[in-house]
Amino acid sequence: MGALDEGHCDVELENSLKLGCIKLGVGVGVEEEPETAQIENAVRVLLRGLGEDINREGLKKTPLRVAKALREGTRGYNQNVKDIVQGALFPEAGLDNRVGHAGGAGGLVIVRDLDLFSYCESCLLPFQVKCHVGYVPSGQRVVGLSKLSRVSDVFAKRLQHPQRLADEISSALHLAIRPAGVAVVLECQHLHFPTLESMLLESRPEAWVKVLVSSGLGVFEDEDVSIWSELMSLLKYRNLTADKIRSTNSVGHWCPSQVSLTSKIPSSMGTLDPSMVSSATSILRSLGEDPFRSELVGTPARFVKWLMNFQNCNLEFKLNGFVSNKLDSPKSNGQMKSDTQIHCELKIPFWSQCEHHLLPFHGVVHIGYFCGEGVSPIGNSLVQSIVHFYGFKLQVQERLTRQIAETVAPLVGGDIMVVVDASHTCMVSRGIEQCGSSTATIAVLGRFSTDSGARALFFDSLPSTSNF
Amino acid sequence: MGALDEGHCDVELENSLKLGCIKLGVGVGVEEEPETAQIENAVRVLLRGLGEDINREGLKKTPLRVAKALREGTRGYNQNVKDIVQGALFPEAGLDNRVGHAGGAGGLVIVRDLDLFSYCESCLLPFQVKCHVGYVPSGQRVVGLSKLSRVSDVFAKRLQHPQRLADEISSALHLAIRPAGVAVVLECQHLHFPTLESMLLESRPEAWVKVLVSSGLGVFEDEDVSIWSELMSLLKYRNLTADKIRSTNSVGHWCPSQVSLTSKIPSSMGTLDPSMVSSATSILRSLGEDPFRSELVGTPARFVKWLMNFQNCNLEFKLNGFVSNKLDSPKSNGQMKSDTQIHCELKIPFWSQCEHHLLPFHGVVHIGYFCGEGVSPIGNSLVQSIVHFYGFKLQVQERLTRQIAETVAPLVGGDIMVVVDASHTCMVSRGIEQCGSSTATIAVLGRFSTDSGARALFFDSLPSTSNF
Repeated sequence: MGALDEGHCDVELENSLKLGCIKLGVGVGVEEEPETAQIENAVRVLLRGLGEDINREGLKKTPLRVAKALREGTRGYNQNVKDIVQGALFPEAGLDNRVGHAGGAGGLVIVRDLDLFSYCESCLLPFQVKCHVGYVPSGQRVVGLSKLSRVSDVFAKRLQHPQRLADEISSALHLAIRPAGVAVVLECQHLHFPTLESMLLESRPEAWVKVLVSSGLGVFEDEDVSIWSELMSLLKYRNLTADKIRSTNSVGHWCPSQVSLTSKIPSSMGTLDPSMVSSATSILRSLGEDPFRSELVGTPARFVKWLMNFQNCNLEFKLNGFVSNKLDSPKSNGQMKSDTQIHCELKIPFWSQCEHHLLPFHGVVHIGYFCGEGVSPIGNSLVQSIVHFYGFKLQVQERLTRQIAETVAPLVGGDIMVVVDASHTCMVSRGIEQCGSSTATIAVLGRFSTDSGARALFFDSLPSTSNF
Repeated sequence: MGALDEGHCDVELENSLKLGCIKLGVGVGVEEEPETAQIENAVRVLLRGLGEDINREGLKKTPLRVAKALREGTRGYNQNVKDIVQGALFPEAGLDNRVGHAGGAGGLVIVRDLDLFSYCESCLLPFQVKCHVGYVPSGQRVVGLSKLSRVSDVFAKRLQHPQRLADEISSALHLAIRPAGVAVVLECQHLHFPTLESMLLESRPEAWVKVLVSSGLGVFEDEDVSIWSELMSLLKYRNLTADKIRSTNSVGHWCPSQVSLTSKIPSSMGTLDPSMVSSATSILRSLGEDPFRSELVGTPARFVKWLMNFQNCNLEFKLNGFVSNKLDSPKSNGQMKSDTQIHCELKIPFWSQCEHHLLPFHGVVHIGYFCGEGVSPIGNSLVQSIVHFYGFKLQVQERLTRQIAETVAPLVGGDIMVVVDASHTCMVSRGIEQCGSSTATIAVLGRFSTDSGARALFFDSLPSTSNF
């Protein structure tokens, strides 16, 4: 092959890579990098530790999916704020200081409601961020509005803590734009970590931990100045001041893994599998982090503890014991009517773990059934237990729905309908970033599979908006 | 340079391209492609046709920004559904048909509220899409939920019409997943096109044209079957059936450019500049479209007509005439109080055009002022006219805010505060896709620049939520 041919190959390579970028979006090429392979290996250890067969169809590509998602979700480590802001600072006339403040000299600019997600440095799970940025231009120049979003995202795409995230965004913008001041306000929400045990005790745990943090530089450095209250009133936080945010939040340990899990390792789990913990540690290293950074020291253990909630176990055995205990005392939930009426158990909260991405999905289960002859309605707590038993394992929503339906059906005589309505972390935190999306799945057995009137009756009884 | 060195170069090239993808996201490499340069040239012609200096700082990179946005926004032409779905079909047990429907055999799956944007084939402007997809699995397999979003996006990222978009998504999914049926429901909203003239006549035009469309295949082919009403009740469209959607929408000509602009070319504009129209035509060609496709034949002219709303003109001359006519008859807006009170003109709607991306931004302007000695409050219609005169040109929000403040200030004695609250199409339709974000900018003159109490008074009078 001559030099010319090789040159031609280069061009083809370059084009195909470019095309790859356009076709597949962010992160193409990540697949072949050594860090990705390291994470894949670590995930295989974690899956085995959960008692899973890593060659089963749904899990085969899970290590790669997890590795890609983690690397793409922490791409901020490789991004440079200067590159982003460069070329997006525009000359813009202001006013003489003696006349007023506007445009490129003192005219406050606020960009609100930027939807971001970040990864919690305490537990490695994604958390959602509603980001608001304000700055006061100086030097007769303003920055392109979209850059406020892009720069914020650079720091969101790292392992983070809400307060540090706010501080890093404001510092970076202050340095890059050189304005009179920058303010950042973040509303962060982190999924709670109920365990199977806590779910059985407490029927409706809070779904989210929410905190509000702020950070200010330049004219925003003093939290008492009027410009903070002006910013807050345009953010629809009237009457909330920056110092109030700081004093009302105990953001230090906001991650539920630091609160709820330290003392609640189910005894059946015993101590944590050291190979799982060291795999989680190696993931931190592959992401370019220092596992000895003080905030990260306990992270691998917390991640593994949480993951162990979804351990594969002899579910049928556990469940049978539970079901036989409970079946003796069925109770009405107040909606019991004659047998031609549908009995409903609505809005049963659940937590589960997507087996394709090792990320949580959570929501509510609605169950409707006709009682067969001689069968009493089942109790709400029994249905909840069944939901939790199937929720706390590696799952897909379609299977969870079917399993709940199949398990409850024989208890009520066979005619049952199940709707599962869930929000998937994997739909928020990966390339597609569909924050507001949700998924409904349906299973119908017996009479419900053939009688559209029965189904319609059940649909009518569903709450019009599922809030979870 | 030996073969070894060349090999080394290849690897470096490959790595740097990969890194580029990770660092800059979708569309890296697009910059150097000939199609991008063609669009840049076309945009330069359009800018000159608007009477702009293409070398002025804010516009220098506009051709490149527009070209990148358009190519990234239509990348669906180069994407392949088979590549996306491949490897994401998972075996999932269902139920025996005689028992019921669940999981991989008949268990309806619905993914709701996917936020997409597309480009209108009638006018080349982006429109927003809330996408809902349902399918009935068959063959004991289900598709990864995120693929429903990715496949929908392939067709959104093209020049589209709502109904065709729905049809193309459902056909592609039907082919790729081979389910028992697929249904797609889209809520599309397209920005309205008020002109300077129509804004002066009608003070509060609708901001959006909204349509709801649906498409179904397989078991969803018959619009009367119960499965459609079941889908709709889980989408929170209870009582709305697929055939009702079809009959209540006249989606044919949904784009406002086809309704409002054909007969409303301001006479001052005369006929359209042929070089601008042929530049718009060349953009279609550069995106890989056929400008002779029947739906696209009028698009270049409609795009140019709309663009000419934002023509650079001797604004001061126009405005002076308008202001002197109106100043004779100042009228109270009902909020006139003693001179120590703030007079407010709130929620004045405006339309403008971002000069960095040639995309509309729109929202409301709030104005507060103290009347100077011997000065009567100005009328609402005068303030509206001033807002529109500055809105209908290539702008940045910071400048618009300052210009309104500077123009109104002398009419009221110098003490004025202006807040502009806007939603930017460029924040929705480009790489950052921040659908819910909005931007507020502030200008303060005279007393408002020194008296934080005065500012606080004005902030208190602002509506708590700006709805535009």
